[in-house]
Amino acid sequence: MTPAGILETTLYAGDLDAAETFWRDVIGLEPIVRAGNRHVFFRCGDGVLLIFNPQETSKASTSSALPVPPHGATGPGHICMRASGEEIDRWKAHLESNGVEIEADFRWPSGGRSIYFRDPAGNSIEFAEPSIWGM
Amino acid sequence: MTPAGILETTLYAGDLDAAETFWRDVIGLEPIVRAGNRHVFFRCGDGVLLIFNPQETSKASTSSALPVPPHGATGPGHICMRASGEEIDRWKAHLESNGVEIEADFRWPSGGRSIYFRDPAGNSIEFAEPSIWGM
Repeated sequence: MTPAGILETTLYAGDLDAAETFWRDVIGLEPIVRAGNRHVFFRCGDGVLLIFNPQETSKASTSSALPVPPHGATGPGHICMRASGEEIDRWKAHLESNGVEIEADFRWPSGGRSIYFRDPAGNSIEFAEPSIWGM
Repeated sequence: MTPAGILETTLYAGDLDAAETFWRDVIGLEPIVRAGNRHVFFRCGDGVLLIFNPQETSKASTSSALPVPPHGATGPGHICMRASGEEIDRWKAHLESNGVEIEADFRWPSGGRSIYFRDPAGNSIEFAEPSIWGM
C-alpha cells in the first residue's frame, strides 16, 4: 500500500490578511474558506493549500467532535508549484510587476527551470517544471 | 493565470535517518534521493515530498550555479495524503501494527473521514478522503 498522492500542503503565516491577499490576488488561487485569525485555505489543482497561523493551530482543539491535533511551525517553509517553461516566463513577469522580487532563477543540471520568491510570511515559494523530477 | 497544482510539499525533520525509515518503510513512499544530513526526498503520486533538516537548509547556498534560497521551519508541520475510506481502514491497522498511535479519527460534518498520526519528527500527518474538499 502506498499513498495515492498529497491532498493538503501547508504553509504558516502570522499575518493571514497579507497571506490571503497575496495567494488570492497575486498567485490567483481560489479561496475555499477563511476562519478568522486561524486559517485560510485555497484550492490548487487537485489539492489544497492550507495556510495556518501557528499561534492558533498550536493550541489543543476544544471540540470533542473535531479533535484536530495541534501543529504549527515557525520560520520559513517551502512549497513548489508546477509550471511549464513558458508559464515560468509569464509568472516571473507577473510577480515582478506586482513588486515581488525573484530571489533565484536557474536551470538544474539534469534539466528544468526553477524560479524562487517569498510570500509575505517569508516562505520560500518556487515555480518549477515537473521535468526536474522526471515527470 | 493560476498554478496547475502543487509539485513539492515540505516537512522538516532533525533526524533524517528516522524520517527516511518511517516514510519509506512504514508509509511506503519511493525514495528519490538522500543527501547526507541535508534532505531526503520521496515521490508521492504526481508530486514529491521533500523532507529537510532545517539546520542545514537554513544556511545560505554556497553554489553560484544552484543558488537555492534558504528556508527551514521548526515545530510540528502538517500534510495530508489522499486515501479512500477503505484505504483509511487499512492504513489505520497498518500504522497501529507498526506501533504508530492514531491520534485522531473522525468524520467531518460535511462528510469524509480523516485519521491523524505523528511522524518521528512530530509532524501531524493525516490521511483523508478527497471528498472532505468536495473532490
